[in-house]
Amino acid sequence: MKASQFFISTLKEAPADAEVVSHKLMMRAGMIKRLGAGIYNYMPMGLRVIRKVEAIIREEMNRAGAVELLMPIVQPAELWQETGRFDKMGPELLRVKDRHERDFIIQPTSEEVITDIARQELRSYKQLPKNFYHIQTKFRDERRPRFGIMRGREFTMKDAYSFDRDKEAAGRSYEAMYGAYCKIFDRLGLEYRAVAADTGAIGGDRSHEFQVIAETGEDAIVYCPDSDFAANIELAEAVALIATRGAATQALAKTPTPGKATCADVAQLLKLDLTQTVKSLVLATDELDERGDIKKTTVWLLLVRGDHELNEVKAGKLEGLKGGFRFATVAEIDEHFGCKPGYLGPIATKKPVKVVADRTVANMADFVCGANEADFHYTGANWGRDLPEPDLIADIRNVVAGDPSPDGKGLLAIQRGIEVGHVFYLGTKYSAAMGANFLDEGGKPQPMEMGCYGIGVTRILGAAIEQNHDARGIVWPDAIAPFTVVVCPIGMDRSEEVKAAATQLHEELQALGVDVLLDDRGERPGAMFADWELVGVPHRVVISDRGLKEGQVEYQGRREAEASKLALADVVGHLKAQLKL
Amino acid sequence: MKASQFFISTLKEAPADAEVVSHKLMMRAGMIKRLGAGIYNYMPMGLRVIRKVEAIIREEMNRAGAVELLMPIVQPAELWQETGRFDKMGPELLRVKDRHERDFIIQPTSEEVITDIARQELRSYKQLPKNFYHIQTKFRDERRPRFGIMRGREFTMKDAYSFDRDKEAAGRSYEAMYGAYCKIFDRLGLEYRAVAADTGAIGGDRSHEFQVIAETGEDAIVYCPDSDFAANIELAEAVALIATRGAATQALAKTPTPGKATCADVAQLLKLDLTQTVKSLVLATDELDERGDIKKTTVWLLLVRGDHELNEVKAGKLEGLKGGFRFATVAEIDEHFGCKPGYLGPIATKKPVKVVADRTVANMADFVCGANEADFHYTGANWGRDLPEPDLIADIRNVVAGDPSPDGKGLLAIQRGIEVGHVFYLGTKYSAAMGANFLDEGGKPQPMEMGCYGIGVTRILGAAIEQNHDARGIVWPDAIAPFTVVVCPIGMDRSEEVKAAATQLHEELQALGVDVLLDDRGERPGAMFADWELVGVPHRVVISDRGLKEGQVEYQGRREAEASKLALADVVGHLKAQLKL
Repeated sequence: MKASQFFISTLKEAPADAEVVSHKLMMRAGMIKRLGAGIYNYMPMGLRVIRKVEAIIREEMNRAGAVELLMPIVQPAELWQETGRFDKMGPELLRVKDRHERDFIIQPTSEEVITDIARQELRSYKQLPKNFYHIQTKFRDERRPRFGIMRGREFTMKDAYSFDRDKEAAGRSYEAMYGAYCKIFDRLGLEYRAVAADTGAIGGDRSHEFQVIAETGEDAIVYCPDSDFAANIELAEAVALIATRGAATQALAKTPTPGKATCADVAQLLKLDLTQTVKSLVLATDELDERGDIKKTTVWLLLVRGDHELNEVKAGKLEGLKGGFRFATVAEIDEHFGCKPGYLGPIATKKPVKVVADRTVANMADFVCGANEADFHYTGANWGRDLPEPDLIADIRNVVAGDPSPDGKGLLAIQRGIEVGHVFYLGTKYSAAMGANFLDEGGKPQPMEMGCYGIGVTRILGAAIEQNHDARGIVWPDAIAPFTVVVCPIGMDRSEEVKAAATQLHEELQALGVDVLLDDRGERPGAMFADWELVGVPHRVVISDRGLKEGQVEYQGRREAEASKLALADVVGHLKAQLKL
Repeated sequence: MKASQFFISTLKEAPADAEVVSHKLMMRAGMIKRLGAGIYNYMPMGLRVIRKVEAIIREEMNRAGAVELLMPIVQPAELWQETGRFDKMGPELLRVKDRHERDFIIQPTSEEVITDIARQELRSYKQLPKNFYHIQTKFRDERRPRFGIMRGREFTMKDAYSFDRDKEAAGRSYEAMYGAYCKIFDRLGLEYRAVAADTGAIGGDRSHEFQVIAETGEDAIVYCPDSDFAANIELAEAVALIATRGAATQALAKTPTPGKATCADVAQLLKLDLTQTVKSLVLATDELDERGDIKKTTVWLLLVRGDHELNEVKAGKLEGLKGGFRFATVAEIDEHFGCKPGYLGPIATKKPVKVVADRTVANMADFVCGANEADFHYTGANWGRDLPEPDLIADIRNVVAGDPSPDGKGLLAIQRGIEVGHVFYLGTKYSAAMGANFLDEGGKPQPMEMGCYGIGVTRILGAAIEQNHDARGIVWPDAIAPFTVVVCPIGMDRSEEVKAAATQLHEELQALGVDVLLDDRGERPGAMFADWELVGVPHRVVISDRGLKEGQVEYQGRREAEASKLALADVVGHLKAQLKL
């Protein structure tokens, strides 16, 4: 393609509201243009990347046996009422009434519609397994859209849904999608990690997030460099850091800690290591009567080591808490501990509370904790001697880097990641709610076992840039660059030789199927190079009069520090090698 | 592709709510599935056709120099308020409020958004001309969605928008799009006609509809078989069918016509030709005061020959009527004619009315018209003698087949058509309203001249089927068939030879880039053939044991009445010839 037939619009400065680097660079490179909060026009340069991402996804989905269809954006509320999501989902579900005042939604995903299709179309075990997908515009009315297209409101998602006759077959569908996702992200040229994720109410172990590794990522992902363990922080199991509880060596002592309301402050004051302290977190659960009024409230004290953080997802799976919990109010804390937050602890509470100790805390000896009296802590506290054993010992903390891997094969490391894909076993959640049954060999109706599999198409652009950029701009992987090669002629309007050589190279590369752009805009070399470094085209060939006199052109890979000179005759061969053609 | 890896779902009977043949066949062939009124799932079989249509459109749009981008489906109301369309458009514009109660619309087209992009991006005459397009989901909340996907609510449209420095350049952009559209519809393999259409308030002659010819079409299109004249019925000029007015030969006579309130009934009663009668239509226009109350009402009498129909679009362009008119009320008619409808005429009205005569009526002599008295008509009426000359003589009727072509080159014919594309010169309607100016050579801001160019992508499927079907099902043109060739092995599970031959043919055709399906479902021959005739695959090869024994396979083109036998060795060559490979 010739630049003159395309639309190129770059900016020196990113708009002030662009927070993250990918947002800034996409705006500057003219890939997106803001239309409203979290709503973007995909400009020609950005759309080329989207189409390449979509093509790779489509190829691998088809190869894995999934069948593409297209479900509508505007969907009748009735189906969403069948599963209860019309009412359950918050304001992120965009609701709309048509001219007849009938309720519709703008699709954020399509579980309901695909399950409706399945219950009509898939009647027999002979038709299973089946996996349908579409690549379609989605809308989620985010409270605070941000990070450009990484957390926009309107976005493009590939969502696939598998239907199987039983759990075992659903597992095979899940594995096929997991494999396809690996191929997709490999082909996209991104550094990523598939990490185990929480399955919530569905249970089981079939939920993986595909995370693009980037320092700026929102998610913490935990992995073991010495094994294949990888999980998101919500799920990653934290083992006890103390194998067995040591014997008490200190007496319990109430120690003044005036104004020291955090473990770190207390440790510093007492010249102790933070790992000797215990942090107290107070939760509450409410039992309701039939009228929905609170019948009974239970207060819980959760204990993690001073250098650890509570993991609320793990806490939410504990017996007694899994029905839903909240943080206790100051009044409830005063009622049960007789003390304000900052000095709370498990010893001699005013009223009984349920004590849950993290696995590590349960094995601590001679520890420091709040004395339930303002400006005082206990030192030398010991389980059994100074306070009863905890009601429950459980993994309730986030892992930290250096923790032993739960598979026993090394130490954990933590990376930041951006979630771009998710494979998820749904079980019969939707098929049971909507009566999506098939007839088994015996002619008996059975609910279909489902899985859902999403890839954030437009988010991939942001994630790829967060991972691949430098001071000059974007550094696209070859597979998804808006153009693979740019030919930059210098003084094309003055020199017939330059024009001829540039045009011929452009045509030769096109004939080879290379996605090449000839920059015939007549820009100054500096401006031209800055544009293409900003846009992130991976391969650049510069053709100048001076070079041609020596039969040479200049090649520079976007990731290379220096340009290199090549004989004009060799440049196609060099590019073929670079592009593995 | 193998059928076992695809999704095929055909029905013997179409659902009761499918009215037109394309809707019925698309439902039966499993191409679409209804989700709600005017909202359809595109099933895998239908989506393949859509993708082929889109690919052809995209190629020709790019070739014509248009640049693809993608504008959002959910658009902020502010832009639509700038042009006034947010308020002016009726309930077919789907309006929605986000979680912050801000107004948005679901796009029916994108003039506002593209003009917003243009006013930011196109600053200088050097950047013009520019033509942007996208292929995107649209929503129009039709009062009565019908005809399947031909008048749905959610549909896919390609909409392009050109920006030019002046009218002349805009004309070139228009011509380029007109040319691209011809190539697109040629390549789609459809019989179509580009017809001149009304430009409404914009004026000028730059509006063409692309109509797919089909007997079931909603639109009447007028053309001259002996010239290139073609226009839709709203626009096609009707010439006077009587060159000069003849002399009066009869006396005016009031004739009893009891209960004969139509021209046809009167002509029959009086044993006259319908062409001797004149039909009266009474319109009214209101002048409003500043408060919006009616200040003055004018009543108009429009006269067309008894065998002709009033053309309201033409009437709406007349001086005095172009501000908007309505049909007169019975009370207004009584007030001005002293008579009930059915017996109205231009002679001796009770109160003065403006008389507009169609060109043909103005040249009639000895004609029949209502006598403004119930159950009476005049015969032998003559202009000048019995009534004053009309206030206005104008073309106010629809042409009929056999009328002389307005270009003087033959007689007009009328076909039915389905509008699938429209090219339209917009002028500065949107650019002026939204301040989309560029700087000309002198540095002076000028509003951009715009054009818009739509193609109903999903509607093309319906139109193609209305044009191409038979009793057995759809007859797709090669270019947009879901599969170009289907290989039907008979008894593939019983015969290794059949299996080997079918598999090899499938692979050979795939290697040639032919979109071929191997039907490995193991269906009975009858069911298999019925499916593919219903789905409309253009080329079918049947491989059976019996045929193979003689080294033969059976080929049948979907449009051919009979199958023909081919040597197995020749079938690829035969298909290559058929597909012009």
